[in-house]
Amino acid sequence: MNNKLIIRKAVENDVANIIKLIKELATYEKLLHLVETTETDIKKVLFGEGKFVEVLLAEYEGFLVGQALFFNNFSTFLGKPGIYLEDLYVKPEFRGKGIGKALLKSVITLAKERNYGRVEWCVLDWNESAIDFYKNLGAIELEEWKFFRLTSDKF
Amino acid sequence: MNNKLIIRKAVENDVANIIKLIKELATYEKLLHLVETTETDIKKVLFGEGKFVEVLLAEYEGFLVGQALFFNNFSTFLGKPGIYLEDLYVKPEFRGKGIGKALLKSVITLAKERNYGRVEWCVLDWNESAIDFYKNLGAIELEEWKFFRLTSDKF
Repeated sequence: MNNKLIIRKAVENDVANIIKLIKELATYEKLLHLVETTETDIKKVLFGEGKFVEVLLAEYEGFLVGQALFFNNFSTFLGKPGIYLEDLYVKPEFRGKGIGKALLKSVITLAKERNYGRVEWCVLDWNESAIDFYKNLGAIELEEWKFFRLTSDKF
Repeated sequence: MNNKLIIRKAVENDVANIIKLIKELATYEKLLHLVETTETDIKKVLFGEGKFVEVLLAEYEGFLVGQALFFNNFSTFLGKPGIYLEDLYVKPEFRGKGIGKALLKSVITLAKERNYGRVEWCVLDWNESAIDFYKNLGAIELEEWKFFRLTSDKF
């Protein structure tokens, strides 16, 4: 861990920056045209009534350089909530400094403090360095499960 | 749809039966030894402070025969919540009557009413009849994503 690095919970003033980081991630994935998210959307789910989404931000030498966005899931076998990590992003120019690892470890620490049963997330299959990193943490790939999505145009 | 079939939201009196159905599903998967869930656990996440899990129950000719258990997830691209369907279960002796389909369609209807962006779930890779059924609904498999889990013993 680096003493130039601070991991902190997002506050309402961070919403515009959270959107910027979401758009940067989408640009990196060449999917910016799919991003419809507004500040109102983010404010509602992070700070509004019925809020259920959380964000941890990474600041390096005073610059906002990454974020982890997550929410609860639930295991019917454990009877406990877990954390599902939806987005983990570090600006490309700040990679290789352990910032992504620090964000993920902070999410895991939160899950531990809350007595949750597990932390889960998805990774693109070509991202071998991420996959190696996750396996070194002790994470297992749920190879026998297929993930399905029904989009709202099919509702 | 069958007029012998009722799909309804679970109430607090259903908690013991929800656990029974969770355990039946686990038994069917030969995983009953992994189930630690108690009535207190279910009551807390469905009806307690900070509740975030929902259950729809299927009653066929007055018998409780299946359930769908789900909670919100969130798309950072759409800026909208979605539904993640954790468990979909119908008692084996009541299968083939469209009960699972009715439960899933009720979950999709809820997502539509709430203006959510999508419904997502996982299926075991050997369950070809389920996979065919999901594809016929218009669901797509997210083949490029690998699903990772870190269990609490690794926190």
